[in-house]
Amino acid sequence: MTFLGAQDDGVIIHPGRVALGIEYMGADYSGWQRQLSVDSVQSRVEDSLAKILRQEVSVSCAGRTDAGVHATAQVVHFDAPVTRPLKAYTRGMNTTLPKNVAITWAKSVDDDFHARFSATARRYRYVIYNSALRSGVFNAGVTHVFKKIDAALMHQAAQGLVGKHDFTSYRAAHCQSKTPIRLMHHIQVYRLQQFVIVDVKANAFLHHMVRNIVGALLDVGSGEKPISYIADLLALKDRSQASTTAKPNGLYLVQVDYDSRFALPRTNVGPLFLPDC
Amino acid sequence: MTFLGAQDDGVIIHPGRVALGIEYMGADYSGWQRQLSVDSVQSRVEDSLAKILRQEVSVSCAGRTDAGVHATAQVVHFDAPVTRPLKAYTRGMNTTLPKNVAITWAKSVDDDFHARFSATARRYRYVIYNSALRSGVFNAGVTHVFKKIDAALMHQAAQGLVGKHDFTSYRAAHCQSKTPIRLMHHIQVYRLQQFVIVDVKANAFLHHMVRNIVGALLDVGSGEKPISYIADLLALKDRSQASTTAKPNGLYLVQVDYDSRFALPRTNVGPLFLPDC
Repeated sequence: MTFLGAQDDGVIIHPGRVALGIEYMGADYSGWQRQLSVDSVQSRVEDSLAKILRQEVSVSCAGRTDAGVHATAQVVHFDAPVTRPLKAYTRGMNTTLPKNVAITWAKSVDDDFHARFSATARRYRYVIYNSALRSGVFNAGVTHVFKKIDAALMHQAAQGLVGKHDFTSYRAAHCQSKTPIRLMHHIQVYRLQQFVIVDVKANAFLHHMVRNIVGALLDVGSGEKPISYIADLLALKDRSQASTTAKPNGLYLVQVDYDSRFALPRTNVGPLFLPDC
Repeated sequence: MTFLGAQDDGVIIHPGRVALGIEYMGADYSGWQRQLSVDSVQSRVEDSLAKILRQEVSVSCAGRTDAGVHATAQVVHFDAPVTRPLKAYTRGMNTTLPKNVAITWAKSVDDDFHARFSATARRYRYVIYNSALRSGVFNAGVTHVFKKIDAALMHQAAQGLVGKHDFTSYRAAHCQSKTPIRLMHHIQVYRLQQFVIVDVKANAFLHHMVRNIVGALLDVGSGEKPISYIADLLALKDRSQASTTAKPNGLYLVQVDYDSRFALPRTNVGPLFLPDC
């Protein structure tokens, strides 16, 4: 087992580009992105960083998560103007960050590393609590679905999304991406006791794409729509035909891939004790 | 898979003794027990019940958890003075309870059922997040230990506690129990990725007993104390020699056993997706 952060002592990070791994619960934030008059994860990270660097810097992230969406493996980069010990970025920042935001690793990277543009793939997990009654534990981190859903049906239906497709039907109305074409690497749906997990990886995602896919899959899982619905909707290229967007509560950015030459640390996929695979 | 609560429609609960299963996060409460001027889980449950019954009733619980301690399987009983549909106690109460408290089941029980005195055994799980850096996800529900600990050593050491013993060394100074003798059914310590779980079951527990045992086990896991420490401390019958009491964050009441004639519903052990065994 890797024991991240344990070997940080004595390591120095010189001025230049630095990457950070960040874990957070998005429930109390208006989303990743800094905006005027609201509380964002980005503003909390930049404020904490400013204390370490004694000057303000901007960070760029791999995936701008929406309000209420969480991350176990967000990645950001920034240009450090001064030398600091590595532990200032890990243990140091973690003392000033709120409890629901934590730095999981820090690393010096080449100047051509860009958290967003160097990323070759993103992976999300969506955690559904499937029980007739809601849970009292970790409500902000799961989406409650009270109708019994069939994970095997959902998995079968979802396979129609794998590969390179025009995902217009699963795109938010206000999505600003230039193209609706995305390459989906995998989508797996499985049950773990009273939880149903949707695990999806693509080169990149359109706005609300995971939550729109989960919303449609829930209609299949509950029996309201046939298995063919997911692929049929994809083929329609019409977002007005789509199901409801699933809530943000259960959504986690769990992995961002980069070229191995950047040699970024790997953290467990998570969240929590979900299988690390 | 049982799908609790799904078969509640149409079931009526007549006046008489009623048992409820309750799940909660204790982080925001001063503990289970109702006290003046502080917020307790009991007061929230009784307030919610009063809305359903249109009169005040007191509930008795299986295990009075301390401030910050959670439960996936707390059990309470009360005497219902009026007839109500079962779903009033489940879905109904869940609409008025705060998000971090939920009813998981309700059942009519014989008048001789007592949530505390009929219980034949209690089981707790203690969830340790073992990483050099703290987590940003579910901080209130895990105890962070930054030094690497050896779960196998902890498990081996803990076996000295199984059986009937005088647990004075693991008892809080202000514990009011008449006897320090308890029968421990099992104690298992195992690693799950970056988590270490302590799973312990006994006929009953002394005040702070689980947290005092976990505190001592952490000293063994980190190598500060030898494997024999746990049994040696038990034999001393002296609480002044003990390790630090572990924090409440990671502690969950996960199971309470009753005679099978009461036929109470079974919920997953939890918390969350921890193995249901």
